[in-house]
Amino acid sequence: MTGDKRLLFPSSRAHLSNGAVIDELLARGKRIHGFWGTAPTGKPHIGYLVPLIKIAEMVAAGVDFIIYFADEYAYLINYKYPRELVNYRTQYYEFLVRASVEALGIPQMDGHFIRESDLFASEKQSGSDLNRLYTLLSIDEVRAVSNEMETATMTSSLLCPARQVLCEEYLGVDFQLGGQDQSGVFALAERILPRLGYRGRAHLTTEMIPGLTTAKMSSSHAAGTKIELLDPPYLVCSKIDEATCVPGVVEGNALLAIARHILLPLCGLRVALEGGSHPFTVTNTTGKDTAYVRYEDLERDFLANSVTPAELKASVAAGLNLVLDPIRKNYDSNKDWQRVAAFAYEE
Amino acid sequence: MTGDKRLLFPSSRAHLSNGAVIDELLARGKRIHGFWGTAPTGKPHIGYLVPLIKIAEMVAAGVDFIIYFADEYAYLINYKYPRELVNYRTQYYEFLVRASVEALGIPQMDGHFIRESDLFASEKQSGSDLNRLYTLLSIDEVRAVSNEMETATMTSSLLCPARQVLCEEYLGVDFQLGGQDQSGVFALAERILPRLGYRGRAHLTTEMIPGLTTAKMSSSHAAGTKIELLDPPYLVCSKIDEATCVPGVVEGNALLAIARHILLPLCGLRVALEGGSHPFTVTNTTGKDTAYVRYEDLERDFLANSVTPAELKASVAAGLNLVLDPIRKNYDSNKDWQRVAAFAYEE
Repeated sequence: MTGDKRLLFPSSRAHLSNGAVIDELLARGKRIHGFWGTAPTGKPHIGYLVPLIKIAEMVAAGVDFIIYFADEYAYLINYKYPRELVNYRTQYYEFLVRASVEALGIPQMDGHFIRESDLFASEKQSGSDLNRLYTLLSIDEVRAVSNEMETATMTSSLLCPARQVLCEEYLGVDFQLGGQDQSGVFALAERILPRLGYRGRAHLTTEMIPGLTTAKMSSSHAAGTKIELLDPPYLVCSKIDEATCVPGVVEGNALLAIARHILLPLCGLRVALEGGSHPFTVTNTTGKDTAYVRYEDLERDFLANSVTPAELKASVAAGLNLVLDPIRKNYDSNKDWQRVAAFAYEE
Repeated sequence: MTGDKRLLFPSSRAHLSNGAVIDELLARGKRIHGFWGTAPTGKPHIGYLVPLIKIAEMVAAGVDFIIYFADEYAYLINYKYPRELVNYRTQYYEFLVRASVEALGIPQMDGHFIRESDLFASEKQSGSDLNRLYTLLSIDEVRAVSNEMETATMTSSLLCPARQVLCEEYLGVDFQLGGQDQSGVFALAERILPRLGYRGRAHLTTEMIPGLTTAKMSSSHAAGTKIELLDPPYLVCSKIDEATCVPGVVEGNALLAIARHILLPLCGLRVALEGGSHPFTVTNTTGKDTAYVRYEDLERDFLANSVTPAELKASVAAGLNLVLDPIRKNYDSNKDWQRVAAFAYEE
């Protein structure tokens, strides 16, 4: 399926910028290389499934994909935590992302996991490339990249965007995948990388899942606002039960977003990988099932209140628990991961 | 003369902070190691003679001294100039500082010249030490170090103080020597280096020479405000002739400062090295010579107008030209230096 751009970059769930880079490679019949990076900070929540499902789709379509652990970035931006702790969190993230990749059925991902610290250490030019980038980046330009940069108080934080830009070159990829909160640094990368003499990359941004009771699902928000990838089944159910879900309100509705960006795409992925039909099923209070393939149909029924908040909650909780179950089982059977977890997130 | 603290750190011309570091080493009979660093930017002016004379005194007193060329710092702070140009300027500075060191009669300085880029490249820990430092330094703390940091616009500029702090450890010295404009970064170094687990260093700050017609003699100000180390004799005379020198006004008087911080200390150094008597001589309009050993006497006579501005100017110009003459001769006979100069400072 190499080169099927429609599958790679569906516009309803992701936005592609600087797409000429991809067009040109496709026109020349080249294989496309992409990466998604994550900085090992707080415990990952289900929002991480959005890019991982995108990766699953793209790998299935023949895109070569790297998952990148930005450990040095995590250290620089979370200046409170010592480097040793970041190492434990990096190991924790590696276990968790590998387990999630397996759970999503992404094939051929072995050897496609790379740490920032290893990557930069192996690039002889990295020190001088970074310094050159810092001479090209005004403080205001870095500040404008995101809210996180705008409110950054420590010098180390301001160094992060340059590292995220430069790894596009060192990883040898054609595009970077990330959430909408990355759009500032993606625009910066497109502007600044050619000034170093490197080719500009494309950027694919995915939608973000809102918090269960807040506007954004974030690792740094209270536990009740997010579902962690290792939350036990009862906790997933009770958190979803307490989530904000106003009849007829789509905006900021985390449950619709989970269905739209996680559960329905996963059904679509199973169809692509296994064939057959895998709809997302909502069971109403009388026991009748409605099968959804397209998000638009679910939203229409929710707006018409033929799917009630209670029914939506029950179905989303059941669907999510199916996805999370193999990840939880992996953790329960993996002593190394459990040992790392104790150091990475001491209570 | 090792351990003669009075000669090392006379309080009238320099201020020592965190002096307990030195006291302790002296009490243990240890040799003292210091360094002075310069970032290769604009063409050096006679203000550079102030630390160099201090170095001459200290080397004569048995202090082990390193002269450090902060080439990476110069690149990061002067973001307009490419790295290649900074390399030429570094070579130019090396030639000029070596010639000045020779002209001042500083013995045993061979092999005591170190480049920042070489030093940091040879320190395996440098990358992680720098990143750790950036996690400890708030942006506000870096901004507060100096006017230059307060008005810095590029990310690269904010990286400079950390590098200047860390080289104290990598050079293995006990103190850093610098002009008063360095006092902010010196205070920062005393606070922050122990937080990395390294010992805090002492800092010796020297007075600065005012500009000839402005408050500060600076490489970045107009040519008429400063005397460059390679200015020809006629130009030294004409610049001094046009310098601001109001009868009875000591404040901001560059000529008195040159006598106080360059010419009189050089006379003192010659006494220390060669014995005999080497006063600074002012010739009045009737041809009568007055010999000065102490600055206070010169200032007193200037305030009383028994030394007029015209007489002071003539004597300072003559004295300076004596100092600069061997440096100019060195340049005139050094083809390599001349070739480097053409690249370093294209007109």
